[in-house]
Amino acid sequence: MPEATVSLPRTVWQQGKLSRDTDAVVQEAPVALVYNGISHAVMMATPANLADLALGFSLSERILRDPGQLIGLEVIEREQGLELVMEITAEPFAQLKRRRRSLTGRTGCGLCGVESLAQAIAAPEVIQADIRLEPGALQRALDGLGAVQQLRSLTGGVHGAAWCDSLGDIRLMREDVGRHNALDKLLGAMALQDCDRSGFVLLTSRLSYEMVAKAAACNIPVLAAVSAPTALAVEQARQAGISLVGFVQPGRQVVYCGEQRISGTANR
Amino acid sequence: MPEATVSLPRTVWQQGKLSRDTDAVVQEAPVALVYNGISHAVMMATPANLADLALGFSLSERILRDPGQLIGLEVIEREQGLELVMEITAEPFAQLKRRRRSLTGRTGCGLCGVESLAQAIAAPEVIQADIRLEPGALQRALDGLGAVQQLRSLTGGVHGAAWCDSLGDIRLMREDVGRHNALDKLLGAMALQDCDRSGFVLLTSRLSYEMVAKAAACNIPVLAAVSAPTALAVEQARQAGISLVGFVQPGRQVVYCGEQRISGTANR
Repeated sequence: MPEATVSLPRTVWQQGKLSRDTDAVVQEAPVALVYNGISHAVMMATPANLADLALGFSLSERILRDPGQLIGLEVIEREQGLELVMEITAEPFAQLKRRRRSLTGRTGCGLCGVESLAQAIAAPEVIQADIRLEPGALQRALDGLGAVQQLRSLTGGVHGAAWCDSLGDIRLMREDVGRHNALDKLLGAMALQDCDRSGFVLLTSRLSYEMVAKAAACNIPVLAAVSAPTALAVEQARQAGISLVGFVQPGRQVVYCGEQRISGTANR
Repeated sequence: MPEATVSLPRTVWQQGKLSRDTDAVVQEAPVALVYNGISHAVMMATPANLADLALGFSLSERILRDPGQLIGLEVIEREQGLELVMEITAEPFAQLKRRRRSLTGRTGCGLCGVESLAQAIAAPEVIQADIRLEPGALQRALDGLGAVQQLRSLTGGVHGAAWCDSLGDIRLMREDVGRHNALDKLLGAMALQDCDRSGFVLLTSRLSYEMVAKAAACNIPVLAAVSAPTALAVEQARQAGISLVGFVQPGRQVVYCGEQRISGTANR
């Protein structure tokens, strides 16, 4: 299996002075998701925690409804990249084939096989989980991020997704070159470890529409991030019943919807 | 047409104090790229500079070889999103249809219609442009970024791509929720304004494989970014003959390949 990082030479220019050394650089590789022999999608991903990615993508893209529907997984290294070869039960596979048939003869881009506008924005799942957080829990999780972002501390610039308990202690952390993949890996790891939903997800990235849709599919009650949301993400979070928190920064955070779950912020 | 930003209510928690107001949030919308009546791809994008996006995507994805092959463009607002309806000349259209036929019956994800590993990583174009930069030019461009990131200053957290001349003065800036779109918009704007190639591109994002591939398709000699590269991006840049510079930060920058174009860094 390829490593998540590789050592590469570099020339560092600093205040006019040059130095040469080698440094860890994060890997990305094409990863194909194969269901019962059918190659469904390929994405660029960091080759780490690939079992988490396989399950998490399957759940967050609603190919599987529960982890028990995944009955086999093998990670195979090919010359051109990696294959996540999954065996899934009959019911979700029949549904996947129906879904794919409706796309026959089409190619897709960016939105997982979506090619025409009508397919682009699906209504999100409405979440069932609930929780109540003190504002300090988000701050506590933010403080803890640095220590658990291992790939980032090695290479700079990879995205992270953390599952935090209601006090803000980080329970799980997953990282990837792609922010969607980081969240998928986290959601997969949570499913594999049978995590309850009495906590929140904190992302090191922005909050776009797909991040909310993935969180909704996996029944995440509070989705927070260090950076900005998009307007569509706020709208989707409202529809899904998710509490959306952006700009989680030292001493500051901004709630865009679902304030009732953050103590002291819902008094209107 | 939808605006690039929308005003939304928010609750700001700051050091334990609450305030409520409204703030500008960036929009994202499904945008379909339609060539001679065929809907080719849909992506989430910020509704601004859409003519730049249409042309830039077409060039950077090698659907068109030169801007003259785009003979008509209309931006149409639909209920579900936006359509960039393009008319292209016969030769690239025939090629696009061949390309699509080879994908018949497949869906794709993440890699623009790519579904099996063999299609995933194409060899990049080898660039023809050349330039010589002082290290200070990258620093000067970095200093100038904040003043031209209009959407970012309004909303936080959107990506930017800047075209800078050899002295580091920013000539063009484009922004988007998606970093690929920001670069595509810039490349499209450069084509529309018939920019020569005696400069460099500076990105506010990370340097992944696709960013290098897009830059290579558009003959960009130096690609720089404030954050980290991936190992595959470095490899692609070497193949394309692009100079790749990461971690452009105050007083510091790191050259990963193509050092000969940055004065004083190529003495081995």
